[in-house]
Amino acid sequence: MKLVFATHNTNKFIEVKAMLPKHIELLSLTDIGCKEDIPETAKTIEGNAILKANYVRENYNLNCFADDTGLEVKALNNEPGVYSARYAGNSNDSSANIKKLLKNLEDFNDRSARFKTAIALNLEQEDTMFLGICEGVIVKELRGESGFGYDPIFQPAGFNKTFAEMTLQQKSEIGHRGKAMRQLIDYLSK
Amino acid sequence: MKLVFATHNTNKFIEVKAMLPKHIELLSLTDIGCKEDIPETAKTIEGNAILKANYVRENYNLNCFADDTGLEVKALNNEPGVYSARYAGNSNDSSANIKKLLKNLEDFNDRSARFKTAIALNLEQEDTMFLGICEGVIVKELRGESGFGYDPIFQPAGFNKTFAEMTLQQKSEIGHRGKAMRQLIDYLSK
Repeated sequence: MKLVFATHNTNKFIEVKAMLPKHIELLSLTDIGCKEDIPETAKTIEGNAILKANYVRENYNLNCFADDTGLEVKALNNEPGVYSARYAGNSNDSSANIKKLLKNLEDFNDRSARFKTAIALNLEQEDTMFLGICEGVIVKELRGESGFGYDPIFQPAGFNKTFAEMTLQQKSEIGHRGKAMRQLIDYLSK
Repeated sequence: MKLVFATHNTNKFIEVKAMLPKHIELLSLTDIGCKEDIPETAKTIEGNAILKANYVRENYNLNCFADDTGLEVKALNNEPGVYSARYAGNSNDSSANIKKLLKNLEDFNDRSARFKTAIALNLEQEDTMFLGICEGVIVKELRGESGFGYDPIFQPAGFNKTFAEMTLQQKSEIGHRGKAMRQLIDYLSK
């Protein structure tokens, strides 16, 4: 079965391809000739994943899955959420995003937050969605060098390290994206 | 805005209608002349919700949301999940379903489980999904008379009552369906 992973991120693509069962021929957006970035204009994380998967179905008539990820901070009404990558502007500037988040959160005692990855899957016979959630807290100062985005200020529940202080493997085992991906892979393996 | 709630359950319909902002004209399946039960043939809870919302869009060209709920038991590989209502057969017999679940779980120490409600929302401008999750444990013997389904054996985390020992209001405040519904209502109110 041909299946498109609606991403332009080569590392993500290779990582997922290696985990999928052999009967699935995974194609990237580049493989199907889609060069543009699919606009992420939805108002929710789930909506962006659906929007991207639907875009591939409508324009290429292919089975597809797409993901979107965001950080939801409880005291900030689940912001930045779908706007996580562009919280401080349109430039995907992690350091500005982190600065803005720490500033907005400084008067709150409740620093609980969660990372969420939504994966929308469109198959001919069925559409579905998988959510991976990782609960944790926003720490007050940046710690660690690994990862990207908000990783230096997010400490998952039950750990005393931020995501940025963990190895990629540790983060993948307990993290939101790994949880959602494993659900997708289980589903496709059946 | 006209919006269909894809349910034949009058109680659920009335309850949700009362919570929605006034600019939304909520219609039931009966209101739009859909008398059949939409088949719930998907392999996931999320998939069934999407399938029902898509059915209304495809057949009636209307904005719609649809829900589906299931119980996921960790030690049983998240069964009964999408098959919760027909776990012991096709008859939606709660007492047989509970009996089968208790039997299948009797050799496990880990009795953790979660109720999940998925709500798929299709609007003209955006599709999205809301998930409400309530973590808990499966108790060994039935307790309480309220509610329905697995409520007499499901005790939510942090409480010493099963759902069937709670009032409808208590259950709605901490339960999976209430959590998902409040997300939908927040979204529609914006």
